[in-house]
Amino acid sequence: MRAFPPRVRVVEVGPRDGLQNEAAAIPTEVKVAFIRKLAEAGFREIEATSFVHPQRIPQLADAEAVLAELMSPGSPPLTTTFTALVPNERGLDRALASGIERIAVFTAASDTFALKNIGMDVRASLDAFTPLVRRALDAGLTVRGYVSTSFECPYEGPVAVERVCEVAEALLAMGADEVSLGDTIGVAAPSDVYTRLEHLLPRLPAANLALHFHDTSGTALANVLAAMEMGISTFDSSAGGLGGCPYAPGAAGNLATEDLIYMLDRMEIETGVSLETVAAASALIEGHLGRAIPGKQYHRILAALQRA
Amino acid sequence: MRAFPPRVRVVEVGPRDGLQNEAAAIPTEVKVAFIRKLAEAGFREIEATSFVHPQRIPQLADAEAVLAELMSPGSPPLTTTFTALVPNERGLDRALASGIERIAVFTAASDTFALKNIGMDVRASLDAFTPLVRRALDAGLTVRGYVSTSFECPYEGPVAVERVCEVAEALLAMGADEVSLGDTIGVAAPSDVYTRLEHLLPRLPAANLALHFHDTSGTALANVLAAMEMGISTFDSSAGGLGGCPYAPGAAGNLATEDLIYMLDRMEIETGVSLETVAAASALIEGHLGRAIPGKQYHRILAALQRA
Repeated sequence: MRAFPPRVRVVEVGPRDGLQNEAAAIPTEVKVAFIRKLAEAGFREIEATSFVHPQRIPQLADAEAVLAELMSPGSPPLTTTFTALVPNERGLDRALASGIERIAVFTAASDTFALKNIGMDVRASLDAFTPLVRRALDAGLTVRGYVSTSFECPYEGPVAVERVCEVAEALLAMGADEVSLGDTIGVAAPSDVYTRLEHLLPRLPAANLALHFHDTSGTALANVLAAMEMGISTFDSSAGGLGGCPYAPGAAGNLATEDLIYMLDRMEIETGVSLETVAAASALIEGHLGRAIPGKQYHRILAALQRA
Repeated sequence: MRAFPPRVRVVEVGPRDGLQNEAAAIPTEVKVAFIRKLAEAGFREIEATSFVHPQRIPQLADAEAVLAELMSPGSPPLTTTFTALVPNERGLDRALASGIERIAVFTAASDTFALKNIGMDVRASLDAFTPLVRRALDAGLTVRGYVSTSFECPYEGPVAVERVCEVAEALLAMGADEVSLGDTIGVAAPSDVYTRLEHLLPRLPAANLALHFHDTSGTALANVLAAMEMGISTFDSSAGGLGGCPYAPGAAGNLATEDLIYMLDRMEIETGVSLETVAAASALIEGHLGRAIPGKQYHRILAALQRA
């Protein structure tokens, strides 16, 4: 038996990274019920929304309303930290006004992807985030950083690992306590995970790294296994696999939280998250999406419930 | 970087294990075209059909016709060995008459599953296969053995690894050159693979073992990775993931060949199989199934072709 971390922290990103790609407009109260159910499942951290400009992602235009409801005095007490993506100073103003304790900033390891997604090249994004992160820290918030295209870029192809290292180091240096490295287009295999981490881990502490896999190729759990063997113990995932690129049945974007928790439960790696409650959260949102969500364990749990 | 086998043998089981669960009647000529395209993809071994009683699996009632066409003098020369499942002496008569060079016998590690699927308990099946395998070997054929429910049984729950070992040993002892251990209900995680193989490998040579994973839980490729780390270099898979239990979009039974080949290609583990040609075979059969097939890479390749 290989050595694996005794416990893994799973960061639930479905409400933000999942829903932002969904076409159907989800009512605020449904999002709140979804996020509350996820919190009940036991996540310590849930990325709840984004303070991106409402015209850019209309789905998340209700960020203030969602957070106000989640953190309202009448809410049941929760041990979950809610985070929100913050793209710029205006977003940080909104985040500070909302009362959340943790934000995330998002850049990439390849310039073309960064330019198309956040309107700045990587260097410009790091320059913009430096004072933003300083201001967030000064206000008592903590910060997570995302490095998308940490394996390949859809426009530039393979991305040099040295570049990933530099961007991750810059985010940690400016004050982020965790950097999430994304396989944005879902092409990585375990060999990529081994070789990238062999390069990164001498320079970046495993405790400050999260991996964010997409299951487009079906390799996400194999990649998690490889990363755990290398000492990584934080992974992002999305309830039901929300955030897929639904060009075909079975196609998937984000790694489905239920699939991840199933494997970790079965390996007796502690997560503190209830698989069944995550599936209940996914079921709650599925009816509002106008499409079936892709997660395999989700469907397995649903089928078992329907037989019971 | 971990040590992995430099090459892996992939046994394509879609035409038998995949199609036998499909409701739509597939014309013989479509099956032949599908199998020919798979052979063209480079598999050294394809399980083409089954000599089960035609009333039991009507889908495979055309076993003789399929094999006659594949092995007809006018066919392009192929380096592929076609195998057929043989459930009993009558099936072996048919197999011998067909001219194939390799057969497979199918039992389980749990009695309830064996009784429900082949009408005999495990002991009775081994007793029945002993003279059958002898006769096949005497006729110059080679034999593969399947041990289904090698992880869990849908009726009995967890299956003792000692039981799996005994059944696999019995099949090798009677003359099978390879035993394929099946995670029939798709529940295994890498921890199961490590612990089972730690128990089995001191008694069974890795070179005589294949693993047959189902992707019902999304763990199949992680399990392949774990098995390769333990020295296993033969895996069964099904083109497009045929043979799923299609209760929901994204639900999957057999590990999709394209997903397996993608991961192995990316890890620079040689298979001799062309991913694109497998996907072409899957596309050829999909139109006749009345449902979308689940494989993730298959859909990815298809989408890329449609954009091109």
